Amino acid sequence: MDEEENEGRLLEEGEAPKIPEEKFEYLDHTADVQLHAWGADLKESYEQVAMAMFNYMTTDYSKVEMKHVYEVEVSGEDLLSLLYQFLDEFLFIFSAEPFYIPRVVQITEFDTENFKIKAKGFGEPFDISKHPQGTEVKAITYSNMQVHADKEMHDVFVIIDI
Amino acid sequence: MDEEENEGRLLEEGEAPKIPEEKFEYLDHTADVQLHAWGADLKESYEQVAMAMFNYMTTDYSKVEMKHVYEVEVSGEDLLSLLYQFLDEFLFIFSAEPFYIPRVVQITEFDTENFKIKAKGFGEPFDISKHPQGTEVKAITYSNMQVHADKEMHDVFVIIDI
Repeated sequence: MDEEENEGRLLEEGEAPKIPEEKFEYLDHTADVQLHAWGADLKESYEQVAMAMFNYMTTDYSKVEMKHVYEVEVSGEDLLSLLYQFLDEFLFIFSAEPFYIPRVVQITEFDTENFKIKAKGFGEPFDISKHPQGTEVKAITYSNMQVHADKEMHDVFVIIDI
Repeated sequence: MDEEENEGRLLEEGEAPKIPEEKFEYLDHTADVQLHAWGADLKESYEQVAMAMFNYMTTDYSKVEMKHVYEVEVSGEDLLSLLYQFLDEFLFIFSAEPFYIPRVVQITEFDTENFKIKAKGFGEPFDISKHPQGTEVKAITYSNMQVHADKEMHDVFVIIDI
């Protein structure tokens, strides 16, 4: 390309064209974001990644007050499916009436032998007049899901569709 | 999951937990959208898909006035690379100072033997106080790019990164 040719100039009177009929549309908008959370143990990492998900749904997570508590109980076949079910269950309580958003997620039972979690979400119904809308989380995915553990740090990575 | 277990209840005094330190971050946000444009001939479809791209950059395309004209000239190896170069050149004039947004794109020479296009973009510098910001278009892609032509309708499909 020759940038010299791309200079603009002011239009002369009557030179502007008629605006044409729109003959286009937008299809298949897809997007995802990878959540990365960590903690001193796996339980904390799982709690943190759930909060990372809810923090994405509002641009001011600090506006979410803790007035209610929801308890959830999930099970999986392994650490990955347990993580998936855990996040999916919390996403479900956000998408079911009344849309409920937790500010703090606490895991009260974390059974990595039988792959069961009991957890509490402390928060309140999502209210667009109080909680500035962030980005809708459409789904949890297994895509490149990772759970890393060593003595000092536990990391989880989850890609969500938005 | 047993939805009966997931009912919320009001918190009692002093039951709300301390808000934990944030231990999460967001990585690798990726998104794309597919543009589909059509016209009575291929020239019109190419013009329309360029306008579809600019229409995506502002939530009120009608606010773009035609005060300036930019001329671009591009060439390709075939219809697909010609389309890519054409859109990429218009994306370039949007991203170079002054950020220029055309309201109408007109192709003045459409040479499908030598794969050359000369086109005019009628518009003005992009001004965030006048043109409500839409979504940034980061790149044109060749991903699943399609140019369809039959007697009555000409369609093009282009996926752009946003």
